[in-house]
Amino acid sequence: MSTMLDVSRAAERLLAAERVLILTHRRPDGDTIGSAAALCRVLRQKGKEAWVLPNEDITPRLSFLLEGLTAPEGTAPGLIAAVDIADTQLLPPSAAALGDRVDLCLDHHPSNTGYARELLLHPKAAATGEVVFQVMEAMDARPDGKIWEALYIAVATDTGCFRFSNTTPLAHRIAADAIAAGLDFLPHNRTFFEAKSKNRFLIERKMFDSMVFSPDGRVCCAWLDRDWLNAIGATDDDLDNLSTLTMSLEDVQCGIILTQNKKDKAYKVSVRTHKPADASRICAGFGGGGHARAAGCTVDLPAEAACKALMAAAAEEIASC
Amino acid sequence: MSTMLDVSRAAERLLAAERVLILTHRRPDGDTIGSAAALCRVLRQKGKEAWVLPNEDITPRLSFLLEGLTAPEGTAPGLIAAVDIADTQLLPPSAAALGDRVDLCLDHHPSNTGYARELLLHPKAAATGEVVFQVMEAMDARPDGKIWEALYIAVATDTGCFRFSNTTPLAHRIAADAIAAGLDFLPHNRTFFEAKSKNRFLIERKMFDSMVFSPDGRVCCAWLDRDWLNAIGATDDDLDNLSTLTMSLEDVQCGIILTQNKKDKAYKVSVRTHKPADASRICAGFGGGGHARAAGCTVDLPAEAACKALMAAAAEEIASC
Repeated sequence: MSTMLDVSRAAERLLAAERVLILTHRRPDGDTIGSAAALCRVLRQKGKEAWVLPNEDITPRLSFLLEGLTAPEGTAPGLIAAVDIADTQLLPPSAAALGDRVDLCLDHHPSNTGYARELLLHPKAAATGEVVFQVMEAMDARPDGKIWEALYIAVATDTGCFRFSNTTPLAHRIAADAIAAGLDFLPHNRTFFEAKSKNRFLIERKMFDSMVFSPDGRVCCAWLDRDWLNAIGATDDDLDNLSTLTMSLEDVQCGIILTQNKKDKAYKVSVRTHKPADASRICAGFGGGGHARAAGCTVDLPAEAACKALMAAAAEEIASC
Repeated sequence: MSTMLDVSRAAERLLAAERVLILTHRRPDGDTIGSAAALCRVLRQKGKEAWVLPNEDITPRLSFLLEGLTAPEGTAPGLIAAVDIADTQLLPPSAAALGDRVDLCLDHHPSNTGYARELLLHPKAAATGEVVFQVMEAMDARPDGKIWEALYIAVATDTGCFRFSNTTPLAHRIAADAIAAGLDFLPHNRTFFEAKSKNRFLIERKMFDSMVFSPDGRVCCAWLDRDWLNAIGATDDDLDNLSTLTMSLEDVQCGIILTQNKKDKAYKVSVRTHKPADASRICAGFGGGGHARAAGCTVDLPAEAACKALMAAAAEEIASC
């Protein structure tokens, strides 16, 4: 298990190193990349040779943050720091061999497995960006525009633009400071919270078209067939978080999305609920499980029949609450 | 014209009054109601007899903010304060007779006409809630939970949950302080930024279904027929801001929404653009006008023909930029 550090001790460790190599997680999001970019730039300001290990999964809308920061092949690592990585299984292929060599991890996931030698963990932070911000303050660093941009993206993306339940006062304060320092946040808000790809649009339209409701409007169900998904060339990214869309409808207490598998043509089912209905109880009846608000299962039935069975189970769960 | 006041002078004026009657604007939004509620509660803390004039247009999702605060009929006004009201024409019917008797206006609209005797105007504030917050600080008031809730709703709704270009550092700081004071912001974020009525859902689905794109994907157009809108019982509120939805699509530079009029069956056209295309130039060719990013016109043609003509004009405008 890791030795737990506080903010000032973590800052000391980083300042004591000459070289730092920063790792980000697989399927990187705004928080891991924003945190890595901010930390790397702060360390360079402090005279360190700091790099971010290239992450082969990075998407174009995030890669600009690492311009000039990604480690050339063969860079000697020095201190190895992981940001926003809860488990070595989440390391990207490029970093897989470094899992047991991580010196310091900065994170906010309560599920952090303690794989790093030392760990600074703020489980109530909305984003690892908040942890990096505090380390930066402890170093008495003066963030420039690019550091503010990286920190803003880290906290804004992990809070759904300050909308989700995890949003903290510190997330808002970082945004306030970033904007006061002159950050042009609008293009980022547009990229991360507004822009919708053509495929995503087609998928949402298809989903809305197939949506069926229980008579009382409290359960809604929609499905996507694999032939159609293949026809438009849908990626897994395009299908991300679809079930949350069902939950934005007034009166809906339980939203169910069925996506046909690539291989066996059965339907992968994602269930979301508002309190008090329990999604895991609904899925348990179909051999699945998960959490109270979000759960899943697999159903090997035609879409209409699967929908009917799942909606009946959901109605029963709602009635029992 | 109004005499301009600074924050401390405005606070003095309010503290010097024994009774204060607060006015809100027609078709009230979260900022006018949140600002009024916060100001009223702060003044009561300071021992004043403060009331908010009832606003007949208030919707259920905002009316809870004024519980216990709305003035009983026949309340002697004392000092009359208007919040977030740029012009006497925006007074609701209940306040129409008071237009030339407003003693103090707190506002953030650059277009404020200066109708009040004295005016505290912060044209760069994202919301009048920011102005009220500063007046409250100048009074050295200690906001309770209900005041934080009202201020949060004021700044969050006027910034689209901290997403729009007008978002200020102070808006974020008010949110940070409100959350730090214990505000349960999630139900409000859900009500104002997530929940979608069944009618709104049906309208968006219809709009997405009718959407056509130019070959390069940069222009998109959709229409809604009156017979169908009547059939689902759509209100004007349900149709609010539909054209912004077209603008969230990647690649779309110009979004055009046609809504058939109630009376003459012609189509009311709403055009939105991203820089540099100019929406007002597109609409000018159809006898309309407006601003660079948002403009409108009326077209008396069948939907398909109107769409075709408007899309051609939009493509021409984009090509000329």
